[in-house]
Amino acid sequence: MLFTMTNLRCHISISLDGYVAGPDQSTENPLGVGGEQLHDWVVALDAFQRAHGGQGGEENASTAVFEEANANIGAAIMGRGMFGPIGGGPWTDDEWTGWWGDNPPCHYPVFVLTHHARDRVEMAGGTTYRFVTDGIESALEQARAAAGGKDVMLWGGGQVIGQYLAAGLLDVLELHVVPLLLGGGSRPFVAGSGARLEQVRAVEGPGVTHLKYRVLTEGAG
Amino acid sequence: MLFTMTNLRCHISISLDGYVAGPDQSTENPLGVGGEQLHDWVVALDAFQRAHGGQGGEENASTAVFEEANANIGAAIMGRGMFGPIGGGPWTDDEWTGWWGDNPPCHYPVFVLTHHARDRVEMAGGTTYRFVTDGIESALEQARAAAGGKDVMLWGGGQVIGQYLAAGLLDVLELHVVPLLLGGGSRPFVAGSGARLEQVRAVEGPGVTHLKYRVLTEGAG
Repeated sequence: MLFTMTNLRCHISISLDGYVAGPDQSTENPLGVGGEQLHDWVVALDAFQRAHGGQGGEENASTAVFEEANANIGAAIMGRGMFGPIGGGPWTDDEWTGWWGDNPPCHYPVFVLTHHARDRVEMAGGTTYRFVTDGIESALEQARAAAGGKDVMLWGGGQVIGQYLAAGLLDVLELHVVPLLLGGGSRPFVAGSGARLEQVRAVEGPGVTHLKYRVLTEGAG
Repeated sequence: MLFTMTNLRCHISISLDGYVAGPDQSTENPLGVGGEQLHDWVVALDAFQRAHGGQGGEENASTAVFEEANANIGAAIMGRGMFGPIGGGPWTDDEWTGWWGDNPPCHYPVFVLTHHARDRVEMAGGTTYRFVTDGIESALEQARAAAGGKDVMLWGGGQVIGQYLAAGLLDVLELHVVPLLLGGGSRPFVAGSGARLEQVRAVEGPGVTHLKYRVLTEGAG
């Protein structure tokens, strides 16, 4: 091909037993029981604190991984279950604008997969939420067009990652493996995806290991 | 305690989606569909080839991991499903002596968990198979007594690993994470084990990452 396509990349924290959120997710506990601990490694980083308007975290082997994972991203895709409370709540009156405050730290367009049509929401700082009701391929096409030549980030959750992987649309998958056993919750891998992966690199951080893979496309050169 | 207990250690290859054997395990395909690829990284090693009477493999970053994982082991435990064909076959007439030939490479006592009582089998080279019908704690007690001060290796399969983990009897868990999606099969983690793990180290090998954890005992010092 003459065109260089932007990559669809996903990086997500996962428990050693394979869950990206714990069991019993709810509005009060959006990451499920025990799920918040999946993100302890990143919240501890100074790079994360600065990206979220804070300071005072640490610098360690995970810092470069965090910075690389968030570099060169021009748009993002996420599932309805990640964007808002599950099972009703503020979402139903179209006033819900995500978990990330009035000035979300990403500063780019975010495409939300949903069955509920809704007008675009403009946040402070350049973030926009756009609601896609016609499926994952359409969302990817729109996100690529909006990314301005940069890559598209697939935020999750687990179910949506599984859908993109099974459809052969994901290019790069990075898992931040945390030594937790959550015993249940949301799994990103679906049976029969048939995806083949190639290990790019592994980095040991404190209390986490960062595993990066390229998803190989069957039949491609 | 005044006594130094030997550790129960487990190291096993696992797919990125969490399976230690693929789906549809059978006598013809004891590792399940696609499961043999879990072991490509180790079969490629010269250290593995030499341990199995061969030669000609390679040396790489996984070599030291392989040697460490197999050092200081005085006895092993494995499940019935790992020892012999599933669903009958040679086992039923007590003539089955495992998948590992007349002179198995381990050269120490191996305790097989089973509901089928059977006399001890002495193999060439010091390996003995002993059949334990009264549960995982009894098997561990017998293996520790037979290990001569060395550690006990828990070979698997997945179900047995889950049982020892849930019972709080496993001390060290090493996973060799292979970039395969098997889509189904045997999983070593069981819901509600409640085990807490501490990351010891991660090593990147070619086509595999070696993650080593210590299992923390609740309430212990």
